[in-house]
Amino acid sequence: MLTKDIYLSHCARTLRYLERAGVVLSEKEKEAIEVAEYGLGIPDRIGLQLVVYVNTERYCAKELVLFPGQTCPEHRHPPVGSEPGKQETFRCRWGKVYLYVPGEKTPHMHASVPQERRDFFTVWHEVVLLPGDQYTIPPDTLHWFQAGEEGAVVSEFSSPSRDALDVYTDPLIRPDAPRQPW
Amino acid sequence: MLTKDIYLSHCARTLRYLERAGVVLSEKEKEAIEVAEYGLGIPDRIGLQLVVYVNTERYCAKELVLFPGQTCPEHRHPPVGSEPGKQETFRCRWGKVYLYVPGEKTPHMHASVPQERRDFFTVWHEVVLLPGDQYTIPPDTLHWFQAGEEGAVVSEFSSPSRDALDVYTDPLIRPDAPRQPW
Repeated sequence: MLTKDIYLSHCARTLRYLERAGVVLSEKEKEAIEVAEYGLGIPDRIGLQLVVYVNTERYCAKELVLFPGQTCPEHRHPPVGSEPGKQETFRCRWGKVYLYVPGEKTPHMHASVPQERRDFFTVWHEVVLLPGDQYTIPPDTLHWFQAGEEGAVVSEFSSPSRDALDVYTDPLIRPDAPRQPW
Repeated sequence: MLTKDIYLSHCARTLRYLERAGVVLSEKEKEAIEVAEYGLGIPDRIGLQLVVYVNTERYCAKELVLFPGQTCPEHRHPPVGSEPGKQETFRCRWGKVYLYVPGEKTPHMHASVPQERRDFFTVWHEVVLLPGDQYTIPPDTLHWFQAGEEGAVVSEFSSPSRDALDVYTDPLIRPDAPRQPW
């Protein structure tokens, strides 16, 4: 469960990462920071922080902040009605991200899989994103990612986001778990 | 006409602005910088620099760089086939932008209209964008913008870009004029 204390400390830390990346937020955006912990209750390991800039019926743009070693758990974006699943581009702005997608398993991968949820990570082809690098995930494709030792700030450009409809590999995950404690 | 000398000097200057804004480009992106001067031949006054991060059939993201006082001329994004025109969100990352859209004329506007093309600016409702501010332009809506005295770096999030189909108010403008000299 996302407590007010955890939310506020994660927000304060998020703002420091954004500052390092040169990202400026409006006051309204600062108050709308989301802390996704997916109902797992281990937000320092599985979770991430989000700032949604815009999410219309046609496109979406967000800033994602990951603390050192924090992991966005494996999921895919399924088709919604007649629309194919969400297509999204991750662009590393600051720090380092290890992204995993279907494909040949990378022999010496960099991320540390959270051991208590180990069974629910199934794709192992590693893409390393440094500042200025980006990668586009096709619709309905499994992926997960973890920040490097300094954390990361990642811009996400995509078709519309419908986060509550995402399909996670881990059955304990609640994609619609609250991202703010109020 | 966009000469190689102008292109290269504008690119070098663009990189300095991006650096100030904390934006990192890949080497490939540095080589793909676009200098839009619309065939008018006055790129320091009417023109802007672009880095296209991604432009798929579903969404587009770019970074726009405007030097002090540089102006993106008035245009709209018309429907394409059965699709409504491009919808786009401008987010100021660094510097200041004066954006003009249809609506009540702002009494004491900040931008200086380029006098030799004065007749081809027709919307006068001013929106001032400082870092962290953003504004979404509906499809098929006239707009133009000018950087403030320090220049500006602006992120653009949008539905797909089809720049050559944009409709400019100024009949001298060629939307498909080359943006690189080769």
